[in-house]
Amino acid sequence: MNGLTKKVLITGGAGFIGSQLARRILNEGSEVTVIDNLFTGSKSNIYDLLDNPRFTFLMHDITQPFWGQFDEIYNLACPASPIHYQRNPVETIKVSFLGMMNTLELALKTKARVFHTSTSEVYGDPHVHPQPETYWGNVNTLGPRSCYDEGKRAAESLCADYIREYGVDVRMIRIFNTYGPFMHPRDGRVISNFIVQTLQGENLTLYGDGSQSRSFQYVDDLLDAMQKYMELPLKKVQQFFQDRNMPVPVLNVGNPGEFSIKELAEMTLSLIPESKSELTFKPLPEDDPKRRRPDITWAKELLGWEPRIALKEGLPKTIEYFRSFIKQK
Amino acid sequence: MNGLTKKVLITGGAGFIGSQLARRILNEGSEVTVIDNLFTGSKSNIYDLLDNPRFTFLMHDITQPFWGQFDEIYNLACPASPIHYQRNPVETIKVSFLGMMNTLELALKTKARVFHTSTSEVYGDPHVHPQPETYWGNVNTLGPRSCYDEGKRAAESLCADYIREYGVDVRMIRIFNTYGPFMHPRDGRVISNFIVQTLQGENLTLYGDGSQSRSFQYVDDLLDAMQKYMELPLKKVQQFFQDRNMPVPVLNVGNPGEFSIKELAEMTLSLIPESKSELTFKPLPEDDPKRRRPDITWAKELLGWEPRIALKEGLPKTIEYFRSFIKQK
Repeated sequence: MNGLTKKVLITGGAGFIGSQLARRILNEGSEVTVIDNLFTGSKSNIYDLLDNPRFTFLMHDITQPFWGQFDEIYNLACPASPIHYQRNPVETIKVSFLGMMNTLELALKTKARVFHTSTSEVYGDPHVHPQPETYWGNVNTLGPRSCYDEGKRAAESLCADYIREYGVDVRMIRIFNTYGPFMHPRDGRVISNFIVQTLQGENLTLYGDGSQSRSFQYVDDLLDAMQKYMELPLKKVQQFFQDRNMPVPVLNVGNPGEFSIKELAEMTLSLIPESKSELTFKPLPEDDPKRRRPDITWAKELLGWEPRIALKEGLPKTIEYFRSFIKQK
Repeated sequence: MNGLTKKVLITGGAGFIGSQLARRILNEGSEVTVIDNLFTGSKSNIYDLLDNPRFTFLMHDITQPFWGQFDEIYNLACPASPIHYQRNPVETIKVSFLGMMNTLELALKTKARVFHTSTSEVYGDPHVHPQPETYWGNVNTLGPRSCYDEGKRAAESLCADYIREYGVDVRMIRIFNTYGPFMHPRDGRVISNFIVQTLQGENLTLYGDGSQSRSFQYVDDLLDAMQKYMELPLKKVQQFFQDRNMPVPVLNVGNPGEFSIKELAEMTLSLIPESKSELTFKPLPEDDPKRRRPDITWAKELLGWEPRIALKEGLPKTIEYFRSFIKQK
C-alpha cells in the first residue's frame, strides 16, 4: 500500500453481502474490484457503483483462475441459499472448492490478505448448542445439502493448509443467518420468503410446527465484524488463536438472539398490517437443521464487536427494501 | 463391451491396492490402464505387468484432466497414510477433490462405470460404534488430518451429486485399515511400522498406552469385495440402497475383528522370534482417532461377502513380503 490507495478484490461482490461491502470500502477511499458470475449476484446491486472511477466490475466465474494485484481479497462467491445451490449442486461444490483454491493461489503469489466467508452450515445439524468455533459439526456427506456444506468444509481445510504450509494471511468467519437490504428476492430462506409473501398477500409457509429456532443477524452487524477483523494486524490475530489452541483464525459471526420461525412470521405480519396473509404449515425437508445459534465469545474478545441491531429494528428496514423492490417490478 | 475385451482404468494403480487390483483384472483377460503420478505408488509394484500387451502405464497426475474410453474406472489415487498426505496437504486435498472431479467428468462423457474408494476417515473420531454407513462422522475441518478427511468427504459429495444430477453409475466403498503385500514400506501406519521395525531389530513405537483398537483387513478380502460390487447390475445396486433410504451406493468394507495396537505389536514380535525388538511408548498425536470398527451388515447383504482372512493368517504373509523386500535393498 505504502500510502497508495488500498486495492481490494471481492469475489461474489454483486451479491447481497458483497455489494454492500464493496460500497463501504469504496466510500472509505479504496479501489474495489468485484468478480461475480451473476448467477445469484445481480448487476442491479452494484448499479450505483459502476461509474465510480475506483470501481471495476469483472464478470468471471471463480472456478476458473483469475489474476490481479490486490492488498486484500474477500472471498464471498458462492450461492448460499438451498434453492440456488441445489439448482446446480456440482457447480456449487466447485465454486466452493475451486474458487477457494484460485483465491488462495492468487494470494500466495501476490501476498494479498484473504478474508474467507465460511458458514454456520459447516456445523450441520449440531449436537452442541450454542456452537463454539471448536465444534466439529454433524454433516451428511451424501444428502441434498452436501454440495454446499461439504464444499464449504473442504474450503476451510484448504485455508488451514495454505496458512500452515505457505503462511498465507487468511481470516475466516462462519456466518450465521443474515438478512437485510439487497437480499435476493427469491433467496428462498425464511426472512425474504416471509416478507415477500406478506407483501404480496400470500400465505406464509412454515415447516414442521414452526418451533425450530434461528438466529437472525442484520447485515450491517456482519459488515462491521468483517471490516474490524480484516483491519487487525496479523500478529494480533495469530496470538489470539494460538492462545486458544486453535490452529487457524476462525470466528463465528452471527446474532445469538433466538427466535422461533413462528415468532418471525408473526412479527413480519404485524409489521405489514395491511396484508391478508395467514400462516400455513408443511412437513420438514430432509436434513433441515433443527436449531443453530452462534457462540460469539471469541468475536467479542478479538474484535470488541457484538451485534447491535435487533430483529425489531432490522426487520422494518428489510421490509422497506423489499417494498421498493417489488414496486419497481 | 459387446463381446470385446473389457477396458479398465485404475487411478493410483501403482499403489498398494491398485497394483494388486490391476494384476487380478489383467489375469481375468481384461485390458488395464494404470494412471499414477508415482508419489506414493511405485513402478516396482507393477513391474511384472509392464510387458503384458493388455497393460498400459500412464504417468500422470489426476489433478489434471485425463481422457480415454473405458468401461470401468476405479478411482484409487490418493496418498492414504498421514506421513505421506501431510507432506503436501494442499496436493492431498487437490488429488482427492480434483481427481474425483476429473474421474466423474470422464465417466459422464464416456458412460463408464465408476468405483470410488472412500475411507473410514470420513467418520473421523466417531461417537457411534461400530460405524454404519448412515453415520455422519465427527471430523475436524482445520486440523492436520483435514486435508485427507475433508478432501475425501468432499469427494463423496461430488459422487453423490454426479449420481443424482447426471445418473453416473458410481459405487463407493469406505475402506477400513487394510494391510498386506505391496504396502508401502514407509507407509507409516501401524502394521508396516511394526513389521519393518521388528525385522530391523528396532523397538516398536506405541502411542498412548497401546489400548486403542483397530480393525485390520487383509488386502485380498478388500479386493474380493471391490470386484463383487463392481460386477453387480446397476439396478440391483440402486434397489438395495433405495430400500435402505440411502441416496447413494456406499458400503463399509473392512474387517470388524478388533485388536488393540498392543496385541498387534505382541503378535508381530511372536511371528519374528529372532528379533530383539521391544515395546516403547509415545504420547498420542493430535486428532488421532481413538477407535474405529466397521459395521459391514450392508456389504454382507449386498455382496454375500465377508472377510475370510484372519490377522493370524494375513500377518505372516505380509511379514514374508517385507522380509523379501528388505532383503532386496
